[in-house]
Amino acid sequence: MGVQSGARSGKQLKLGFILHGAGRTWSDWRHKEAEPNASTNFAFYKRQAQLAEAGKFDFLFVADSVYITEKSSPHYLNRFEPLTILSALAGATEHIGLVGTLTVSYSEPFNVARQFASLDQISGGRAGWNVVTSWLEGSAANYSKSAHLAHDRRYQLAKEYLDVVQGLWDSWEDDALIHDKESGVFFDPEKLHRLDHQGEFFQVRGPLNIARSAQGQPVIFQAGSSEDGRNFAAQKAEAIFVHHETIEEARLYYRDVKARAEGFGRDPSKLLILPSVAPIIGSTEAEAEARYQEIAGLVSIENALSMLGRPFNDHDFSVYDLDAPFPEVGADALNSTQSAVLKIIAAAREENLTLRQVALRFATPRGDFVGTPEQVADKFQLWLETGASDGFVMFASLHRDLELFVETVVPILQARGLYRQDYDGTTLRENLGLDVPVNRYTAQRSARSAA
Amino acid sequence: MGVQSGARSGKQLKLGFILHGAGRTWSDWRHKEAEPNASTNFAFYKRQAQLAEAGKFDFLFVADSVYITEKSSPHYLNRFEPLTILSALAGATEHIGLVGTLTVSYSEPFNVARQFASLDQISGGRAGWNVVTSWLEGSAANYSKSAHLAHDRRYQLAKEYLDVVQGLWDSWEDDALIHDKESGVFFDPEKLHRLDHQGEFFQVRGPLNIARSAQGQPVIFQAGSSEDGRNFAAQKAEAIFVHHETIEEARLYYRDVKARAEGFGRDPSKLLILPSVAPIIGSTEAEAEARYQEIAGLVSIENALSMLGRPFNDHDFSVYDLDAPFPEVGADALNSTQSAVLKIIAAAREENLTLRQVALRFATPRGDFVGTPEQVADKFQLWLETGASDGFVMFASLHRDLELFVETVVPILQARGLYRQDYDGTTLRENLGLDVPVNRYTAQRSARSAA
Repeated sequence: MGVQSGARSGKQLKLGFILHGAGRTWSDWRHKEAEPNASTNFAFYKRQAQLAEAGKFDFLFVADSVYITEKSSPHYLNRFEPLTILSALAGATEHIGLVGTLTVSYSEPFNVARQFASLDQISGGRAGWNVVTSWLEGSAANYSKSAHLAHDRRYQLAKEYLDVVQGLWDSWEDDALIHDKESGVFFDPEKLHRLDHQGEFFQVRGPLNIARSAQGQPVIFQAGSSEDGRNFAAQKAEAIFVHHETIEEARLYYRDVKARAEGFGRDPSKLLILPSVAPIIGSTEAEAEARYQEIAGLVSIENALSMLGRPFNDHDFSVYDLDAPFPEVGADALNSTQSAVLKIIAAAREENLTLRQVALRFATPRGDFVGTPEQVADKFQLWLETGASDGFVMFASLHRDLELFVETVVPILQARGLYRQDYDGTTLRENLGLDVPVNRYTAQRSARSAA
Repeated sequence: MGVQSGARSGKQLKLGFILHGAGRTWSDWRHKEAEPNASTNFAFYKRQAQLAEAGKFDFLFVADSVYITEKSSPHYLNRFEPLTILSALAGATEHIGLVGTLTVSYSEPFNVARQFASLDQISGGRAGWNVVTSWLEGSAANYSKSAHLAHDRRYQLAKEYLDVVQGLWDSWEDDALIHDKESGVFFDPEKLHRLDHQGEFFQVRGPLNIARSAQGQPVIFQAGSSEDGRNFAAQKAEAIFVHHETIEEARLYYRDVKARAEGFGRDPSKLLILPSVAPIIGSTEAEAEARYQEIAGLVSIENALSMLGRPFNDHDFSVYDLDAPFPEVGADALNSTQSAVLKIIAAAREENLTLRQVALRFATPRGDFVGTPEQVADKFQLWLETGASDGFVMFASLHRDLELFVETVVPILQARGLYRQDYDGTTLRENLGLDVPVNRYTAQRSARSAA
C-alpha cells in the first residue's frame, strides 16, 4: 500500500462505536469470549463505552427496532432501549458522544425533542439523534396502527417531524435564562418562543420545556440509503451511518451524497459519511482471518436464512433449494429497507449466487477490515483519503476486538496524523467539527436589528 | 408527644425523595443557597441522589408535565425529562429506586413499556412508573390533538394503557432465555409471548423486545386523588404519591383508599400511601420556623397568583381584588387536577379566605414538618402509627435541608426502629416490601399442569 505516510489531506478520521450487545451477527453470542446476556447487561455496555472513550472515539451509537417475532435474531430480541441506555452511559463517560436511533413513525415529536434535549443537557452537549423511519412492516401492529406508512410518505413525514423537533429545540434563546436572585427575574419572556407548527402530519404549539445545551442542538444522524433516504440525508443530516460491501460502492455513494448536499446549498464537509466496519485484528494476517472464520462459522444456515428473511418482511426462505440460484422473491411487495433488499437481489443476480451463498454472506459480512494492525490502518487511510468515507462506525461485540483496535490500530492512525491525540472539545459538535446551529429566533433578531 | 418509644406496630417508614431541580415553590431558586440552574444540572441531581441514598431512601421520584407557557413557574419551565435523568442516575447510584412520572395521554404504550423495562434492567430492578393522565388542558396542543380527553375518559384510557404495558412486561417468562452456546439455543420460543391486545383505545401485538428484570416488573405509582384517581389507585397502584394539608385529611384519605383496595380484593398493605412532606429542620423550633419564613418570603404575590392560575387552566387571578374574599371561578369548566382545584375552592369558602391568603398558602404550603429533628421525627412517627401514611415522599430543594434530614432525623427514626439501618435488598420491590408479580404466562402454565 502506498498510503502510510503523513496526513497529506489534513483530513481527520471520525470514529463511532456501535453498542450492539450480544453481537453484530446472529451467533456472535456463541463465541467462547461472548457474554450472551450482553444486550441487557449494563456493566458490559459501560465497559465498551469506557474502552471506546479511552480510544478517543467520537461517539457511541445505538441502533434500534420496535418489532420482534420468535424468528428474530438474538441481538434484536432482548435489548436496552436507546435513550435510556445512552442516558445511563452519560453518567459513566465524560467526552464521548451519545447517538441514539429513534423512529419518527411511532413517537411524538414533542417527546422525542424533549428526551434528546434532556440527554444533551445531562451529557453537557454530547447527544445525537439517528433519525429513522422504521424498516419493519410489522412494527405498526405494536402501535395500534393497521399499516406501516408507504416508503415515500415516511420520508415526507420524517422531514416535517425533524422540522418540528429542531423548531422545539430552539424554544429558548441561549441567553433567555437570567436567574437574577435579587430582582426575581428567572428568564426573559421575549426569548422564549412558541413554535405554533401547523403542518400536514403535526400541529405542535411549544415551547419545549427544556433549554438548549452547550452544543445548541443534538447532532442529526441518518441511516437511509434509498433514493428518498439519500435526499433526506443530503438535505437534513450532519452524519450518515451506512453499510457498504466494497470501497468502490462506498466511493460512488460518497460522491453522490456529497453532490446532493451541495445541490441543497450545503457545505458538503458538514455532512460526514461514516460507513460501518467490523475490524478483526490479528498479529498476522492468518491469525486475523482465522478469528473471522471462527466467528462467522458460528452461524447456522437456518439462522442465516431467518436473518435474510427479516428485511424481506419475514419471508420464509427455508422452503427453497439451498444450492439452487437465489429464488425469485418480489421486492415490489415490500415496504421496508428497500435499498438493502435491492442490493441483495442485485448481487445475487450479478454473481449468480445460490441461496446458501447469499444467506451466509448476508449473515456474516466479512468486509474490508480483517488483518494486522498496519493493514487495518492502511485500509482506514485508503477509505479516508480516496473519497470513500469521512470515518467509520465500528462494530466489535467481543471486548478483545475493541481492545486490540484501541491498543494497536489507534496509535498507528495517531502517528500518521490521521486521528486525534485527545478530544478536541467537550461537545459532540466540537469533536466532529460541526457548527453550533444559531438559534433561529436569535438569528431573526440579529437580522431585524441589522435592517 | 407520646410517641418516642420503639416501633410497637413494627411498621417501617418508606421514604422517597423528589428530585425537583430549582425547587418546590415558585421562588426557591432565589434563596442564597440555591442553584438557579438546578433543573438541568446533572451534578446537582447526582448530589441529591447520592445524599438520599446515603440516607437509605427507598426511591427517587421525578414529577413531570408536558406543557408550559411564559406564565409557568420556574421549576416547570426548563427541566430534565424523567426517563433520561433517572437512567443517568441509575449509573450513579446502587440501591435507591428510580420512579418516573409519565403521562398515558400523549405516549405509546409500547414505547413506555420498553423505556421503563429498560430502566429497570439498567438499574438491576429499581424502576417505578408514576402513571398519570396529565393535568393541563393545554398539553393537547403540543401533541397534534385538538383537545385533552375528559377526566373520566382519561382514567378509562389509563386502565387499558396499564393493562397493555403490564402485559408487554410479561412477554418473556423468567426462564425464557437459555443462552446455550453449545447447542446454539438462545431462547425457548414457548416462553416468548405475543400480547395481541385488542381494546377500545389500543391494539398492540407484542412481544416486547426486552425481558423482565430482577423485580419482575417496575413498581406502579399513582398520584391522582379525585374519585376516579382513587379507584384507579386502589385497583392498580402499588404506591400512591399524594398531597395533604393536615393529618386529619391524610387519615381520611388513607382509610378510604385502603378500604377501596380491599374492595377490589387486594391486600391493602401492598398499596403504600406516601404523602408529600417538605421538612425544614432547625436546631431549635424558632430556627426552623425562621428558615421556613425565609424561603416562603421569596415568593411575590404576582408569582403566587400565576401559580394558582395554573390548575385553573391558567386563569388570570390578577384582575381581582387581592383582599376581597376568594373570587367566584367556576370549577365546572375545568378538565384538570379536579381534586386539587376543588380543595382550594372548598378551603377558601370554609375559612372565608381572601385571594391573597389562598394564593400564598397555595404557593408556599407550610405543612406539618417544620421543627427540630426530634419534632420532625415525632411527626413522622405520628403519621405512620396513626393511620395517616405508610411513609413519605420528601421535598428539599436546598442541599442543606436534605443533609440535615439525613444527619439528624434519620438516626432518630432508626433508633426508634421505624426506619431501616440498611437496604433490605437490591430491588425497589424488596425495599418497599412488595411482591414480585408472577409472570402471567408462567402462572397459566402452572395452573394448566396442576389441573
